[in-house]
Amino acid sequence: MIGRLVVVGLGLIGGSFAKGLRESGLCREVVGVDLNPQSRRLAVELGVVDRCEEDLAVACQGADVIQLAVPILAMEKMLGLLAGMDLGRAILTDVGSAKGNVVRAAGEAFGAMPARFVPGHPIAGSEQSGVEASNARLFRRHKVILTPLAGTDADAVATVDALWRALGADVEQMDVERHDEVLAATSHLPHLLAFGLVDSLAKRNENLEIFRYAAGGFRDFTRIAGSDPVMWHDIFLANREAVLRALDTFRSDLDVLRDAVDAGDGHQLLDVFKRAQAAREHFGRILARRASKDTINANDDHKEAQS
Amino acid sequence: MIGRLVVVGLGLIGGSFAKGLRESGLCREVVGVDLNPQSRRLAVELGVVDRCEEDLAVACQGADVIQLAVPILAMEKMLGLLAGMDLGRAILTDVGSAKGNVVRAAGEAFGAMPARFVPGHPIAGSEQSGVEASNARLFRRHKVILTPLAGTDADAVATVDALWRALGADVEQMDVERHDEVLAATSHLPHLLAFGLVDSLAKRNENLEIFRYAAGGFRDFTRIAGSDPVMWHDIFLANREAVLRALDTFRSDLDVLRDAVDAGDGHQLLDVFKRAQAAREHFGRILARRASKDTINANDDHKEAQS
Repeated sequence: MIGRLVVVGLGLIGGSFAKGLRESGLCREVVGVDLNPQSRRLAVELGVVDRCEEDLAVACQGADVIQLAVPILAMEKMLGLLAGMDLGRAILTDVGSAKGNVVRAAGEAFGAMPARFVPGHPIAGSEQSGVEASNARLFRRHKVILTPLAGTDADAVATVDALWRALGADVEQMDVERHDEVLAATSHLPHLLAFGLVDSLAKRNENLEIFRYAAGGFRDFTRIAGSDPVMWHDIFLANREAVLRALDTFRSDLDVLRDAVDAGDGHQLLDVFKRAQAAREHFGRILARRASKDTINANDDHKEAQS
Repeated sequence: MIGRLVVVGLGLIGGSFAKGLRESGLCREVVGVDLNPQSRRLAVELGVVDRCEEDLAVACQGADVIQLAVPILAMEKMLGLLAGMDLGRAILTDVGSAKGNVVRAAGEAFGAMPARFVPGHPIAGSEQSGVEASNARLFRRHKVILTPLAGTDADAVATVDALWRALGADVEQMDVERHDEVLAATSHLPHLLAFGLVDSLAKRNENLEIFRYAAGGFRDFTRIAGSDPVMWHDIFLANREAVLRALDTFRSDLDVLRDAVDAGDGHQLLDVFKRAQAAREHFGRILARRASKDTINANDDHKEAQS
């Protein structure tokens, strides 16, 4: 049981975190902060939070846990503001899709990474956005990765872990660098390829006529290119180095594949395709197992647009 | 109304073509040819064809239309055999996913491209395969692209067109080169990228642990990497040149995108992502319109694994 939970940023993720914990009864009070007056009003009306504040300092008075659910490029400014306040024993945590930049920004804002800051990232999302899409079940059976540092307080980690578990999430810990590398490979790079391919086709086919000949497989492949451009712009700037490493690795593998096509090397193509098919089936089984544990969530899963 | 239709190759595509036309009542007789005795037996049992023949020459006696639905790399051999027979006024057509190589092979086999050979390609498929998956509705609301040459008989084109329309397909004509370019861009390249990315990740993560952190977006992106490796191996070899051109164009666009990430050029990233999102939404509307015309087919669409 904690006293006051403050959620800064009432978008889909912040709103869902607030709503789920408010419903869990684990927090005596859930306070929302958002610059947008309509989001604040809606958050109260929809029962996402107990009350809202416009001012960050006012909201954070007496906070036990402060969840930063603002866009990743706004994190630096937010951490600068928090560093100027007396936060007492409040635990800080966040939901940013990249962790190295948040840890770096926190170190700069506070002079050193605060021991009670537990960086986190829920691998969940939805095609919907905004506080009105808040869903207390959004994180059920979804991975949440915490990336505490060597100096992070163990009890702060335990508290943040307990909050996510109360929402039904599957919490794991990982190094900051490993997190950024894994997400770059499994989420950021695929998004970059999908955005890149769709734009590459679109700009060479002025009336977009070429898409008339694409079918369902192409739709699946490019679905993620329909994601929020601004959010993704932020993510690529925030996780720049890990994305570049993942991209360069992929480009060199793609060069090898290109040479195999060019040389008509059927054996090599078949090897790559068979290994990929086997890995893809392995991944499909992981998701199927996860979905079968929670059929309602399987439904959510389908609409996922995680980062 | 035509007399005898011969379908060579009783896989999903050949079987569905045969079954649909048999049910349409448009052909007096539908004859199947397949090397596999079990496929021949099943094709008769399941009502896919009226009868089957093991021998191509026997099957083609008195044929009015011969549909070649064999794997694309088997087309050359098949055309060689047909060139040695007296086909009378029979119309030849095929379903290969690349057209340049088929036209080239036909020219070589027959000495010149036969006037009554109408190259074709249905943009349809399914995760299922084999004659037992034959589905008379497989081509409904799906595009079929015919690529007749300047010397192709107009009445042969009209007949093949009418057969596909009887199956509910949306038939269009295109140049051979344009067909191969469009398919390379919208189908073959995405498959190469998906196969390549999944293999790239899998081979650097021995126990495939990295896939545990991937979510639904990654599943959509890589779904097509679960496609039949042998069929795709064939397609890349068959459409080698167009695939290389599409890939090289994409690689140079990707290099530009990489530089934008590297330089932290947010404006350029945002421009690309916004254009991609708009094009992706345009494409989504095309598919939605197509699906709303035929809700049953929308269901099929979802499982599509076209080439």
